[in-house]
Amino acid sequence: MELKLNKPIPEDTICAISTAPGMGGIAVIRISGTNAIIITDRIFHTANKKKLSEAKPNTAHYGTIADENETPIDDVVVTLFIAPHSFTGEDTVEISCHGSIYIQQQIISLLLRAGCRLAQPGEFTRRAFTNGKLDLSQAEAVADLIASTSAASHRLAMQQMRGGFSRELIQLREKLLTFASLVELELDFSEEEVEFADREKLTDLASEIERVIKRLSDSFTLGNAIKNGVPTAIIGETNAGKSTLLNRLVKEDKAIVSDIHGTTRDVIEDTVVLQGITFRFIDTAGIRETHDAIENMGIERTFQKLDQAHIVIWLIDATGSTQDIEKIAGRVLPHCTDKRLIVAFNKIDKIGSATQQQLTDLYKRLTREKPNTSFIFLSASHDQNIDVLEKQLTDTIQSTQTGENDIIVTNARHYEALLNAHDAILRTLNGLQSGLSGDFLAQDIRECMHYLGEITGQISTDEILGTIFSKFCIGK
Amino acid sequence: MELKLNKPIPEDTICAISTAPGMGGIAVIRISGTNAIIITDRIFHTANKKKLSEAKPNTAHYGTIADENETPIDDVVVTLFIAPHSFTGEDTVEISCHGSIYIQQQIISLLLRAGCRLAQPGEFTRRAFTNGKLDLSQAEAVADLIASTSAASHRLAMQQMRGGFSRELIQLREKLLTFASLVELELDFSEEEVEFADREKLTDLASEIERVIKRLSDSFTLGNAIKNGVPTAIIGETNAGKSTLLNRLVKEDKAIVSDIHGTTRDVIEDTVVLQGITFRFIDTAGIRETHDAIENMGIERTFQKLDQAHIVIWLIDATGSTQDIEKIAGRVLPHCTDKRLIVAFNKIDKIGSATQQQLTDLYKRLTREKPNTSFIFLSASHDQNIDVLEKQLTDTIQSTQTGENDIIVTNARHYEALLNAHDAILRTLNGLQSGLSGDFLAQDIRECMHYLGEITGQISTDEILGTIFSKFCIGK
Repeated sequence: MELKLNKPIPEDTICAISTAPGMGGIAVIRISGTNAIIITDRIFHTANKKKLSEAKPNTAHYGTIADENETPIDDVVVTLFIAPHSFTGEDTVEISCHGSIYIQQQIISLLLRAGCRLAQPGEFTRRAFTNGKLDLSQAEAVADLIASTSAASHRLAMQQMRGGFSRELIQLREKLLTFASLVELELDFSEEEVEFADREKLTDLASEIERVIKRLSDSFTLGNAIKNGVPTAIIGETNAGKSTLLNRLVKEDKAIVSDIHGTTRDVIEDTVVLQGITFRFIDTAGIRETHDAIENMGIERTFQKLDQAHIVIWLIDATGSTQDIEKIAGRVLPHCTDKRLIVAFNKIDKIGSATQQQLTDLYKRLTREKPNTSFIFLSASHDQNIDVLEKQLTDTIQSTQTGENDIIVTNARHYEALLNAHDAILRTLNGLQSGLSGDFLAQDIRECMHYLGEITGQISTDEILGTIFSKFCIGK
Repeated sequence: MELKLNKPIPEDTICAISTAPGMGGIAVIRISGTNAIIITDRIFHTANKKKLSEAKPNTAHYGTIADENETPIDDVVVTLFIAPHSFTGEDTVEISCHGSIYIQQQIISLLLRAGCRLAQPGEFTRRAFTNGKLDLSQAEAVADLIASTSAASHRLAMQQMRGGFSRELIQLREKLLTFASLVELELDFSEEEVEFADREKLTDLASEIERVIKRLSDSFTLGNAIKNGVPTAIIGETNAGKSTLLNRLVKEDKAIVSDIHGTTRDVIEDTVVLQGITFRFIDTAGIRETHDAIENMGIERTFQKLDQAHIVIWLIDATGSTQDIEKIAGRVLPHCTDKRLIVAFNKIDKIGSATQQQLTDLYKRLTREKPNTSFIFLSASHDQNIDVLEKQLTDTIQSTQTGENDIIVTNARHYEALLNAHDAILRTLNGLQSGLSGDFLAQDIRECMHYLGEITGQISTDEILGTIFSKFCIGK
């Protein structure tokens, strides 16, 4: 079903508390829909008896909310936005009231009696989408923006909300549409063997689309990591200093996070924000060389956990024997083939420069064949070179982002659609190479367009929309 | 120290998150002070490049908040209020941003870098007081209003915020001031024995003030009960059905409270809101006639707990023996002398009309001497007459409030000041009767004025103000 972006405005007017639940200094109740102003005028009274319906757009008005018995509920400030110049594209009123839960409830129930309906989760944003104020990927970015907890996830959401990546897809899809129409036109003249669609130009376009889709879908692993925290494993022998290192990294972070109230509730154990990038540490058991079968099974499980990691920090007690290190390397390295590996020699304060040289040589020998590897000497307990380790962690992510405006996909729904679109465009390219007939080509092109359209919302079903917006909080 | 209500506006500009902490659809950041507009202009950019300093008061503007590096932080709506037409009486800007904790933090720290200071708890309201927008009791009512959780506590706070009760005190205090000045003038002419202040009129005024203060301070017990919940004890034998009755009362309430999200966190166990009045149930152990010394001590403790109660519901198993009831009555009734007592005969479904008549007679005989008592037959488990009990509970409170505009004191600080003022005005009256000399009279009058002024804030010290406003939430 191809939804019209400028569907008529729904008849009903919705309301909801838009600020965080609970008690605050003030709270904001949002009302949107054709009757937003009429309904507010029924319950809101200014000192000069002026009606909101006579007020100018984008103005704020001080007055009293009173119920049917003229019992005052609160003194409030009401701000007026007139369609289409509002977030939803509809007439919108925002009531800024005192932040008592009781007052919030009273105003909401008064609004319901006055003719509003309680908004469903994400319904304001859904209306913004329906009224063409945002495309679907921008609407989804609103939810990401609200949920963002680090500079990196915030930047990605802002970028997506400003339409960065759907703009490109919409353009490519339009070009594809032209070709699809031409190919389909050929079908009407199938007996005459004409070619309206220039196969060479179509191949160029399909190749370009394939490249763009590939680049976008490849960015997902990183994008997802940035959005949810880069999965990072610290492995090492039990006495290597894992906990000390983790505490050292986490402590630095906690000092930053606890600066402003209301944030601690969102701090997850063992998550560190460095340079605006969230690193999520995967809990692993200590490893060591053992012949005990049971213990070996536990260690095997640690190695299996490495599969989730994007980065592995292998922490080594620098005072230990090089033979032990070599033995463990034989088990660690095979699990790190497509990961970023940082080999960290701990307890630098307890070794001399000769040992340091020896270990450097050992590192070089062990990792000769492996790209994406670096090493570092540090002391977790003496806070030496922890900053260098942090820099290596952040560089890992920043080096994969080539520019500020690099587009990165963070949404699993988009990723799936991109993979499907990629399949379809590859089939189109193969079809072009093997001289496939127009009807099959058209089918593949249409399929690619379908999946691209799903991302931007040009193609959408109520089911898809329902799933997307139900994840929003109420009041947004 | 007599504070000027129209003190010059402080130089520094403050900011804070004014909405409830945590993640919401939107959040509001408030900025107040002489530089509020200049500072906002440094970080806020509209599409048409128009500056906030050129905008009209009470207007809302859509634009982007960006940091020093022009990195966009959020798309926001900014509302402008120009002094003195704002809550604080200063230039005020409200930024309505996306409700991500990260964004809220970023905007706050950007504002701090741009020249704001983080507001202290209640500092916006304190500035409103300093700038003469509210008197002190009104300012305190703002905190009560935000904390209000029932219709009754909300109504009292609204009334106080609208200045209901300080207006009367200010007038009385002014009249007193005239007399004080006249009495003090007499002291300058003490050798001539003149009387500038008409002693008869002064006695009339002092009597009037005494009555008003007495009425206000008497209202505190009720006011405090309404604000914090009317303390209500259900006592009775262990098998009388106390828990069933309590569950029945509480359940009704929970159904109402859970209607709108975000409220449950504030539901305290065993608190019931009936007709907008909160009843707070005091936990008591079951009582019974026993000769066991230890058990008797426990029961004595139950009776002691009755001292906290405003209302006592004495629940009696109607199927029990009248002798037992009489025995227990001998111990219950002496503890209920100045309380409202409701004698509730439970298990009405299990007794005949003869027993009912017998119990009614027993009730009448037992409570012959005691006012403020009523009785009721009910069945907690069959939900019979629970509504009648609820009506008796709410009538108890509503009957003490004679009218809608009756002024009720809810604040312990006001209560203490009223008691002190009452002492002083009584001394004045006694002094007038015994023909006390002007210098002593003047001292008592000044003292009464002092305490009345403490309530309205005409007399205030930094210490008093600090204590009051530190109880506010940040951002209000």
